[in-house]
Amino acid sequence: EAFRERGHQMVDWIADYWARLDEWPVRSAVAPGEIAAKLPEQAPEDPGGPDEWDAIFHDLESVILPGITHWQHPGFFAYFPANASGPSVLGELLSAGLGAQGMLWQTSPAMTEVETKVLDWMVGALGLPGAFHSERSGGVGGGVIQSTASEATLVAMLAARTRTLRRAPTVSLDALTLYASEQAHSSVIKAAMIAGLAAHPDDDRQVRKIPVDASMGMDVSALARCIEEDRAAGRVPFYVCATVGTTATTGVDRVGAISELLGSGEARPWLHVDAAFAGVMALCPEHRHLFEGVDEADSFVVNAHKWLLTNFDCSLFWVQDREALLSALAITPDYLRNAATDSGRVIDYRDWQIPLGRRFRALKLWFVLRHYGLSGLRAHLRGHLEMASEFQRWVEEDPRFEVVAPRTSSLVCFRPVGSDIQAQSLLDAVNAGGEVYLTHCVLPRFGEQGDRRGSVMALRMAIGGMNTHRKDVARAWEVLTEKLTEIQASSSG
Amino acid sequence: EAFRERGHQMVDWIADYWARLDEWPVRSAVAPGEIAAKLPEQAPEDPGGPDEWDAIFHDLESVILPGITHWQHPGFFAYFPANASGPSVLGELLSAGLGAQGMLWQTSPAMTEVETKVLDWMVGALGLPGAFHSERSGGVGGGVIQSTASEATLVAMLAARTRTLRRAPTVSLDALTLYASEQAHSSVIKAAMIAGLAAHPDDDRQVRKIPVDASMGMDVSALARCIEEDRAAGRVPFYVCATVGTTATTGVDRVGAISELLGSGEARPWLHVDAAFAGVMALCPEHRHLFEGVDEADSFVVNAHKWLLTNFDCSLFWVQDREALLSALAITPDYLRNAATDSGRVIDYRDWQIPLGRRFRALKLWFVLRHYGLSGLRAHLRGHLEMASEFQRWVEEDPRFEVVAPRTSSLVCFRPVGSDIQAQSLLDAVNAGGEVYLTHCVLPRFGEQGDRRGSVMALRMAIGGMNTHRKDVARAWEVLTEKLTEIQASSSG
Repeated sequence: EAFRERGHQMVDWIADYWARLDEWPVRSAVAPGEIAAKLPEQAPEDPGGPDEWDAIFHDLESVILPGITHWQHPGFFAYFPANASGPSVLGELLSAGLGAQGMLWQTSPAMTEVETKVLDWMVGALGLPGAFHSERSGGVGGGVIQSTASEATLVAMLAARTRTLRRAPTVSLDALTLYASEQAHSSVIKAAMIAGLAAHPDDDRQVRKIPVDASMGMDVSALARCIEEDRAAGRVPFYVCATVGTTATTGVDRVGAISELLGSGEARPWLHVDAAFAGVMALCPEHRHLFEGVDEADSFVVNAHKWLLTNFDCSLFWVQDREALLSALAITPDYLRNAATDSGRVIDYRDWQIPLGRRFRALKLWFVLRHYGLSGLRAHLRGHLEMASEFQRWVEEDPRFEVVAPRTSSLVCFRPVGSDIQAQSLLDAVNAGGEVYLTHCVLPRFGEQGDRRGSVMALRMAIGGMNTHRKDVARAWEVLTEKLTEIQASSSG
Repeated sequence: EAFRERGHQMVDWIADYWARLDEWPVRSAVAPGEIAAKLPEQAPEDPGGPDEWDAIFHDLESVILPGITHWQHPGFFAYFPANASGPSVLGELLSAGLGAQGMLWQTSPAMTEVETKVLDWMVGALGLPGAFHSERSGGVGGGVIQSTASEATLVAMLAARTRTLRRAPTVSLDALTLYASEQAHSSVIKAAMIAGLAAHPDDDRQVRKIPVDASMGMDVSALARCIEEDRAAGRVPFYVCATVGTTATTGVDRVGAISELLGSGEARPWLHVDAAFAGVMALCPEHRHLFEGVDEADSFVVNAHKWLLTNFDCSLFWVQDREALLSALAITPDYLRNAATDSGRVIDYRDWQIPLGRRFRALKLWFVLRHYGLSGLRAHLRGHLEMASEFQRWVEEDPRFEVVAPRTSSLVCFRPVGSDIQAQSLLDAVNAGGEVYLTHCVLPRFGEQGDRRGSVMALRMAIGGMNTHRKDVARAWEVLTEKLTEIQASSSG
């Protein structure tokens, strides 16, 4: 009964929090150590008395909130959005309340079967190939929820490694080479380090960073040359990560062209598509062209937990060849054996991932799909895409600013014309104001002929927060232009 | 406002669910495909109407609950417990509602600082060495929440690998060898496969499974011999996983004795202690002896999400040498650089783990500690330990049953005297009844002289559910003896 009372209170607290988000600066303004200093040095020895929960709710205001960077704030344009919608939060709550484990089918069949079904739904909704569909692939392929795209990229690499070494048992681990664009997510290198294919982030003995062209997508001919050279040197290309929507600019690698050059047959490397942020755009037919060629990908990942109204974590991952994944990750000790597993008729998702345990994360996506419907989700995405288009126009029309990368999604990369120092000053001034929060990236610059001319710092306006409306984007633009005026006045004054 | 209303409804639903857990069979009785068949073939196109949430709550009863194995049921004695207490579930709810990301200190300082502080609290509460304490170690060691012990075991292995190869750069990856008892968790082998040190679960080229003795703990002299042989053969022992509380029996590897034989100096392998389930017993001074030698461990993991009233996931992990962890896992792309990180004055927990993103999991542990206090948590553990002691006595006093492994925790491993077939029949009959749910393990058997005599199947009575009381344990014993009587009557009839 105490749970009931405090639970209602917590639900109300969250509803109130969402309603008053604009009372705080978007980015927490605390100094290092400031929050820690508000906490006692030791854990409480005695149980909390009748007033403890009042004290806890008090501390949420005085200890926690000052140290929160408000990702749900309408003025949050940093990194990528991390939508936490009401239906999704209720799914998370329910998953916690059920307190069940989904490591095996048997440990809660609904956790596995709802997940498989919802992932199959998403294959249809995103226009992904039937080979990713658990049923339509005849049980050969299928989908699973990973915690993060980083883990999806890693398990895809492990599956690729295992499949390659099983097909060619004489190949040694250090002959394997993998490929991603220089703009690919850091998790590709991290996965290589974990898998024993790189000793440190700059170790390029087995990792090839392929340059991008002016589109900020991979230079496919450079990839072709690199693979050819590696093969000529006796190396074994085994994994290519194509990114649809890079972290810095949402640049797009041309999956179809990459797939074509990889050829066919046993020597074809595993093609993984990392569409962590932008993948949800495949819900809208008018953006499907970004995903051309994905039919031939071995694996595909998109995060529902960024821009699809589903709170972290919920990373949707599909493979065409589930056997490869299982051979990289499956182990069945005696204490996990059971009749259902032995029958071969069920999926045990623990064998599809790094951890053993797993929560019921399909619930929140199920709730989101039922509450918003696919049409509601498309409207959500299209609204932000329209705001981004308008923001881009404002930037282009102001001679003091420039757009510095082609826009493919709701992210606009731009900067004040001038030095990186001024761009940094602008970013710092805007973020210190507390109304909006943006982050930056560093991009290669290209001349008219596509020739490379050093690098440049850009501001990232990542639109996609569920509380972000046109007026918030307009206000962000106002703040940006005002702050730039101030900076330019003070430097010329 | 809809969130407020549906949120209250969900809290009430969960409170009701906890109150009526005994209405369902503990283990779901559905057949493969039965839940999936209740779901539509495609995601809904349109948003849910005003009645959609009523339909969702209806489906929770008719679609979800029949497919749930009720881990919070008082009669759940399978695997290990997965406590989901009220305070903890509220912490999970709050984390979801805040919807913030803790990948960097800067992305929400409170997420990092509360986590560091609560992990420091637990160092004191568990009697762990000061070298694991972020502050008392002078920032050299420290703690972090991992999703699972599997991931902790993996990152410890990666840190060990990196440290070893940096100290001895001429050593090749395939010269490294690692050690764990044959009763260690499957995640050790899985980590080796991920790290590129094993091609499949039975690949023993770099992985040594050390036999256990009759205590079900590692045979330390066998470990010593194995390491000696490997060194003589030019191999480089780099990682030893000692388990305090194995999965099958909660057997205990003697950490102090293992540490002693590992010696000191640069060639000393990394010593990781996997205390995933039993580690929380270190809260009770009378059980500290199980952890003797942990002061010399390089890393230690215990799951708050098993027996410590904190819902999954919340795996507490400490290292003495955080630099080793960082050198294995840290990458800082431009888009994640920021002044706080550059200052070196803050912790960025993304560099301590496999994924990039992270939720605010310290909240739930903070709530649990404040609500129950350390004394309340000790009482929780001691209550189950007492029940286990009593259950063990019942087994010992019944000539038809035998205890088959020394009891060190709240887990009792036992079996009906006789064949494995009869043990399996008993397990199946008990689980089919729906009142209780137990799982099994397969154990080596030892003669009077400690000589090995094949293996034997055992039933595991894992006591630790937060709704499990003495009467539920007594009822389980009643069911076990009744079913055995039936089986013996029918086989002799």
